Amino acid sequence: MVGEKLYGLIQLLSKFPGLGPRSARRIALYLLAHRAKVLKPLMEYLDEVDLRYRYCSVCHYLDEEDPCGLCRSKTRDSAMLCIVACMGDVWALERAAFFKGYYHLLGGLISLTHGKNPEDLNISTLKTRLSKGVLEVVVALDSTIDGQSTLHYLTQEIFPLYPHIKVSSLARGLPMGGELESLDQATLMSAFWGRREITSLPFSSNAWHSFEKGKS
Amino acid sequence: MVGEKLYGLIQLLSKFPGLGPRSARRIALYLLAHRAKVLKPLMEYLDEVDLRYRYCSVCHYLDEEDPCGLCRSKTRDSAMLCIVACMGDVWALERAAFFKGYYHLLGGLISLTHGKNPEDLNISTLKTRLSKGVLEVVVALDSTIDGQSTLHYLTQEIFPLYPHIKVSSLARGLPMGGELESLDQATLMSAFWGRREITSLPFSSNAWHSFEKGKS
Repeated sequence: MVGEKLYGLIQLLSKFPGLGPRSARRIALYLLAHRAKVLKPLMEYLDEVDLRYRYCSVCHYLDEEDPCGLCRSKTRDSAMLCIVACMGDVWALERAAFFKGYYHLLGGLISLTHGKNPEDLNISTLKTRLSKGVLEVVVALDSTIDGQSTLHYLTQEIFPLYPHIKVSSLARGLPMGGELESLDQATLMSAFWGRREITSLPFSSNAWHSFEKGKS
Repeated sequence: MVGEKLYGLIQLLSKFPGLGPRSARRIALYLLAHRAKVLKPLMEYLDEVDLRYRYCSVCHYLDEEDPCGLCRSKTRDSAMLCIVACMGDVWALERAAFFKGYYHLLGGLISLTHGKNPEDLNISTLKTRLSKGVLEVVVALDSTIDGQSTLHYLTQEIFPLYPHIKVSSLARGLPMGGELESLDQATLMSAFWGRREITSLPFSSNAWHSFEKGKS
């Protein structure tokens, strides 16, 4: 009753991250109901991004040029390298706008459940970069089992080859605005274990006040 | 940093029903990361559905042929017409597989908030059909303000023109498996107000038992 092609479209959409059969049906009908305003532009965008975007051969970011805009930048600190899993992580860090080094995208995380192994990640280009002028590496990976497996692999197998490089990973602890009683045990333990002397806190009390004001 | 075309794609995706900026970003990256397996097939499907699917000139269902498969069926009861808002409603009813008449899709609901008026709905073709052999109409619209506005409009403006047609709308009451204490007040009131004599219940006790068994 649905028709082969429409059924195929719905099936394909239902496998997109975050979508299920129900939302896929809604989106398929939305596309067909708004052909000129949505379906046609979507086809053009898909065609264009497919045609134009390539992975940067240096950092593996997706961009219209190779090397990408981030790698071409002359104002960044070439001694600092931030290792992330994927593009979305770069966007998150760039939105926060405090890191001024370069990035390296692993193209995913080591995952037993998804059958992703170290050889599926962008490790060889990472090695090349680590051997050329990088002095500090920040590993910014998800605080998940896959993120930790990947961090473990990098720490055991890769970083020991470059003993002159200072390596750190993101702190774990209370998220901004987080309330103790609503935190999970693991976060609370990490926050307690990683406690810092009050003199070394990165925020002045003024910065904290303006954060709190912004919230309310 | 994102690039004009990719930004455009994300913006477009974020306006899809049920998606937001975050899920749109994830889907855009998913598409670019899986070009051969997802992006290319998606483009082909979009092209095909755009090319092949047209609204049925009788009932306004989307199909590869006009009249659509449902309207071409010879085994349905031509005296019965079920009025629904959109294709998804037809799918829901056809999944339940008990209605054997024909459908008429209004192409939406009257909505003050979305600026949708009676003249934006498929009313003129409905009138043509009501004047030709239809003896019974079931209005199967959402139990929402827009659904009720549309039902009100049909009841006031359209059905009085065809006094020989028996019109009914869907019953309101307890959903199957619904527990009294978790129901909203309006549903409970509707269920109470629409109470039926036990002799006229549509389910035999056997049918109810097998439903309850299937649940557990």
